[in-house]
Amino acid sequence: MKKIKAAILIIGNEVLSGRTQDLNVSFISQWLNTNCGISVNEVRIISDIEKKIIFNTLDLSKKFNYVFTTGGIGPTHDDITSLSIAKAFKVKYVTNKVAYSILEKYYGKNNFNEGRKKMAKLPSGSSLIENPSSAAPGFKIKNVLCLPGVPSILRSMMPNLKKYLKKGPVVMSKSINLNTVESRISLELEALQNKFLQKVDIGSYPFFKLGKVGVAIVLRSENKKYIKFCEKELKKIIKEKKIKFINIK
Amino acid sequence: MKKIKAAILIIGNEVLSGRTQDLNVSFISQWLNTNCGISVNEVRIISDIEKKIIFNTLDLSKKFNYVFTTGGIGPTHDDITSLSIAKAFKVKYVTNKVAYSILEKYYGKNNFNEGRKKMAKLPSGSSLIENPSSAAPGFKIKNVLCLPGVPSILRSMMPNLKKYLKKGPVVMSKSINLNTVESRISLELEALQNKFLQKVDIGSYPFFKLGKVGVAIVLRSENKKYIKFCEKELKKIIKEKKIKFINIK
Repeated sequence: MKKIKAAILIIGNEVLSGRTQDLNVSFISQWLNTNCGISVNEVRIISDIEKKIIFNTLDLSKKFNYVFTTGGIGPTHDDITSLSIAKAFKVKYVTNKVAYSILEKYYGKNNFNEGRKKMAKLPSGSSLIENPSSAAPGFKIKNVLCLPGVPSILRSMMPNLKKYLKKGPVVMSKSINLNTVESRISLELEALQNKFLQKVDIGSYPFFKLGKVGVAIVLRSENKKYIKFCEKELKKIIKEKKIKFINIK
Repeated sequence: MKKIKAAILIIGNEVLSGRTQDLNVSFISQWLNTNCGISVNEVRIISDIEKKIIFNTLDLSKKFNYVFTTGGIGPTHDDITSLSIAKAFKVKYVTNKVAYSILEKYYGKNNFNEGRKKMAKLPSGSSLIENPSSAAPGFKIKNVLCLPGVPSILRSMMPNLKKYLKKGPVVMSKSINLNTVESRISLELEALQNKFLQKVDIGSYPFFKLGKVGVAIVLRSENKKYIKFCEKELKKIIKEKKIKFINIK
C-alpha cells in the first residue's frame, strides 16, 4: 500500500502570537492516521496575510498528497482563506449555491446578513465539507481541504472528509514507559534502531508527569509483526539493564 | 524601532504524529514579544529527518532575523538536531569543551557515559544557552537558537537567551469579549479595521468556553495610543448595536 503524505497549514495570527493554543494539529494527525492511513509530514503556522496563504498553499500542495488548512473561513474581515486560495489556484471567488442555501436555511431568510453570506463565497469549483455544528461548510479544491479553526467545529466535520481521501497504510504504535533516563539506554536503542531500520521507527521521549520522571519508548510501524519483534528485543534490553516499567496512565 | 521577526522550527516525529501536544509555540511567542519585542511570523513542525532539518533551518534562517528550534538535542539516536545544523552551516560537529565540563560536573565523572557525552557535541563555533534544569545546554549558531523539546526545561532556559537577542517594539494587545456572534458585527469591524489600517490589527475570534459562547475582539498594536483610540470607537459600535460584554476569566 502506497504511503499518503499530508501537510497541515494553520492560518491565524492568534496562534502565532501565542494567544490561542493550537489543538488541531494533534487531533487531525491522529484522526488521519487512524481513519485513513494518511500521515502528516509537515505543519506550518502562518499569519492572516494573503500572499503568505497563497505561497504556502501552493508550496505544500505541490509537495504533499493533501493539504489541510485550518482557520480563516468565518464571516469577519480577517477571514481571508477562501479568497486567498481562489487566488492561489487562479479561479474565481464566487457564491457557492449549495453553501448559500445551507446557510440561508440555517439562519433563516431574515437573519441571513452580509457577514453570513460571505461564508458561502468559495473558490469556483470547490466541493463542500459539511458542517454539522454551525452550518458554514468547509471546502475542498484540488488537493487542498479547508476547515475552520474552532476545534469543536473542526472535529465534528472530520468524518465528512473521508469521501475525498485516498487510503494509505495505518501506522501502528506501541508505547513502553520506563523508570529511567534516556542516557542509560541510548546506545542500546541506537543499535536496536539500526537493526530495525526502515521497519520500525523508534522514538525516545523523556517525560515529567504528575511527579513521575521517565522515558517513553515509542515503536511505530505499518507492520504489527515488526512492532512485536522489536518490542521483544527491547524488553530483553530492559531486563538486562534492570530497568523498571512505570505506569503513567 | 525596527521590527524583529522570528520563526520557530519544531523538530519531532512525536508532535507531527499527534502523540505529543506542542506547548512551546505559544510560550516562546508570548515570551519573545513580552521580553524582547520580537514577533513570531512563522512556525514549522517537521520530522526527525536530517535533510528536512537542514533545508528548513537554512530556509527560515534566510527569511527571518532569528530561528528558534525545539527538540532533538538529547542523548538518543533520534536526537539529530545538533549534527544536522552543523551540516546545514557546513561547520564541524565537535565536542564543546565548556558544555563537556558542565555535563561532566553535573553527572559526575563515573556516570558521564557516551549518551551524555553526545549532548556536549555541537556545531563548531556555537555559543551556549545555559540550562538550569538539566544541565545539557542549548546553543546558538548564526541566527539559529536551539532549545530542547521538554516544555519545563525550555521555559527555564528562556531568560538565558536574552543576551543573544536584539530588541524590537513590543506588540501590546487588548481583548474585548462580547456576548454575540461574529456575523452580527462583521461589517462594522471591517470598516474599523480599514480606518486603523497599518496602525491596529483587529482580530475576531469566536469562543465556546465553559458553556459560554461569544466573540473575542483583539486589538494589537505597537502603539498604546492607537489601541486606546480604536477601543473607544469599538465601544461606540458595541453600544449602538446593544451588544453586551461577557466575562470569561
